[in-house]
Amino acid sequence: MALALNGESISTLPQYELECGITLHSVNIAYKTWGTLNTERNNVMVICHPFTGSADVEKWWSKLMGCRQAFDSNRFFIFCANVLGSPFGTTSPLSENPSTGKLYGPDFPPTTIRDDVRLHKLILDQLRIVSIAVAIGGSMGGMAVLEWQLCFPGFVRRAIPMVTCAKQSGWCIAWGEVMRQIICSDAAFNNGYYPPDRPPTQGLSAARMAGLLTYRSSASYEERFGRKARSGMTCGETAEEAGHPLYLAQSYLRYKGALFSSNFDANCYLHIIRKMDTHDITRGRVIGGLDEDAALTAVLSTVTTRPLIISIDSDILCPPKEQRQLAEGIPDAKLDIISSVAGHDGFLVENERINAAVLKYLQRELSEFY
Amino acid sequence: MALALNGESISTLPQYELECGITLHSVNIAYKTWGTLNTERNNVMVICHPFTGSADVEKWWSKLMGCRQAFDSNRFFIFCANVLGSPFGTTSPLSENPSTGKLYGPDFPPTTIRDDVRLHKLILDQLRIVSIAVAIGGSMGGMAVLEWQLCFPGFVRRAIPMVTCAKQSGWCIAWGEVMRQIICSDAAFNNGYYPPDRPPTQGLSAARMAGLLTYRSSASYEERFGRKARSGMTCGETAEEAGHPLYLAQSYLRYKGALFSSNFDANCYLHIIRKMDTHDITRGRVIGGLDEDAALTAVLSTVTTRPLIISIDSDILCPPKEQRQLAEGIPDAKLDIISSVAGHDGFLVENERINAAVLKYLQRELSEFY
Repeated sequence: MALALNGESISTLPQYELECGITLHSVNIAYKTWGTLNTERNNVMVICHPFTGSADVEKWWSKLMGCRQAFDSNRFFIFCANVLGSPFGTTSPLSENPSTGKLYGPDFPPTTIRDDVRLHKLILDQLRIVSIAVAIGGSMGGMAVLEWQLCFPGFVRRAIPMVTCAKQSGWCIAWGEVMRQIICSDAAFNNGYYPPDRPPTQGLSAARMAGLLTYRSSASYEERFGRKARSGMTCGETAEEAGHPLYLAQSYLRYKGALFSSNFDANCYLHIIRKMDTHDITRGRVIGGLDEDAALTAVLSTVTTRPLIISIDSDILCPPKEQRQLAEGIPDAKLDIISSVAGHDGFLVENERINAAVLKYLQRELSEFY
Repeated sequence: MALALNGESISTLPQYELECGITLHSVNIAYKTWGTLNTERNNVMVICHPFTGSADVEKWWSKLMGCRQAFDSNRFFIFCANVLGSPFGTTSPLSENPSTGKLYGPDFPPTTIRDDVRLHKLILDQLRIVSIAVAIGGSMGGMAVLEWQLCFPGFVRRAIPMVTCAKQSGWCIAWGEVMRQIICSDAAFNNGYYPPDRPPTQGLSAARMAGLLTYRSSASYEERFGRKARSGMTCGETAEEAGHPLYLAQSYLRYKGALFSSNFDANCYLHIIRKMDTHDITRGRVIGGLDEDAALTAVLSTVTTRPLIISIDSDILCPPKEQRQLAEGIPDAKLDIISSVAGHDGFLVENERINAAVLKYLQRELSEFY
């Protein structure tokens, strides 16, 4: 199920203890780098991928990469590593459990954003990197950016978290639950114990379709699809559908769902939803009886990266309110709210504006590399 | 599957020709009335129910009913009829097809909002009603309010469409497609040919959960659930879930999904989604080669009900932009945008404010009844 790794590296650790207390053995970490480490070993740009991304940034954020772009490998040593539980090379439900000789499947132990960051730090240690110049990521990648700063105080100089939050919200937990229930209602899922050649394709596809909509907005669908039908096409998969027009918005979602379910794995999908549910930067970091708000204020006040925090105003999943909370709590943070109909996915869609905002911040805050 | 009809009436028509050209035979129409028809037979308040509602307004909009409330049966003869394809009494996929002696199931022919309105008009004709004083409804009910005005020009004096649109948007068509795919991915669905005692409960439940979230907002879930877990409760339905906390937002959705799927039918659900997909007040009403915008302007300009149009500012499903379009096109329309975190469901949640807005409009526009 793992995609071919185009020039990516795989590092294997003999063991790694997870936050839940379970120790994984023979842990693979897939990562990819671009550019050259300088002699000070500090020109490092860490990019953290979102939910369904991989270490290969060129596959999902290519418009920002290149000479004189935000992700410029002539200036930075760019590093991106795949998270635990993702199907793209790092150890996941698709890996063999060395203690049983079988695939982990649904028995893969739960992992957290912190587990990913600490694991990826071990690779940076192997590369003898002394500090991260900047950590950048959106959505789940933004959660990781926040954790990089908090897990390794002083190690990360600057940071750009986008469309993310201090804690996974009840709203996002609820959407995760919807996607979980969709996958579970596909009989092929069989509680996660499906054979590799008979995965719950329909359920995974439908779950992805729900996810895709939460990443967009009403206005973006009106602009792109409206009520347009595929000319001459009618639905016909079931009796209920026969003879109805096939709207473009429908056929687009069906195409995207099917494409996704042929490249991703349902147990991996559920694993990463659960990982995001655990995201809470205050967990275990506050001593004493502070209430939730005070605990968050205390933790945010320790961040020293003067981050650029990016919002998309039409984001219905992680609305600007959540990034405003970060910006108000982190000393010297700057909040940039981009006006766009693109919704949550705006960080991957509004390339020109994101590129310009990131570049401006880097040139000001890391002028020694320009 | 149909719920008990508490004092509702059922009228049966020998036949009814649908917009699609198919004629239904022995058509039941479930409806309920409150109050007394005046001697002029014109004190009629028609309430149009939303997607999963029924003719029994007291079950889903009770807070607005009562003496000196917006829906006051001392002043108005209140009428609400169940739509075609709904499981609550009117002919639907759960009805017997007289030509086969079997349930219609997925072979129930497609119906439109206009089919409902014209069918319900026949009941008003039986009651010798000469005009509707006011038609009121939200969401799909608001679509029907718009169609009442356009199907029977001059018959409807005043109107209050809420959180609705001139045409079902591509965004809503896309959400409908997600729910359709969720239901189809439940193996028990079997293209709609499931036995009554083995319905696709899991798929219908998951589809409802997705629907419920689109009716709310991020802020409403934060206010109500946040990251709270059910104390001491852990998920345990599958290996992947074992040991994880059960968040309140999750357990709430599971409860709501299960409750719904025990009271609704999957073929009815799919039928009504398809009905809403057809909603377009310009369909067949504009002669000549007008573009979409000009056609809409032309149709809206014929509405003479001086409607009160109600929006909820946090509605992510039918955002205020769609009601603004109605208000800008209909002569002497008034737009009331209610500020609330409740989302699309705000019309059923913000009872005090909705009641006050409706009452104020009725007292001004229909002063003879006050």
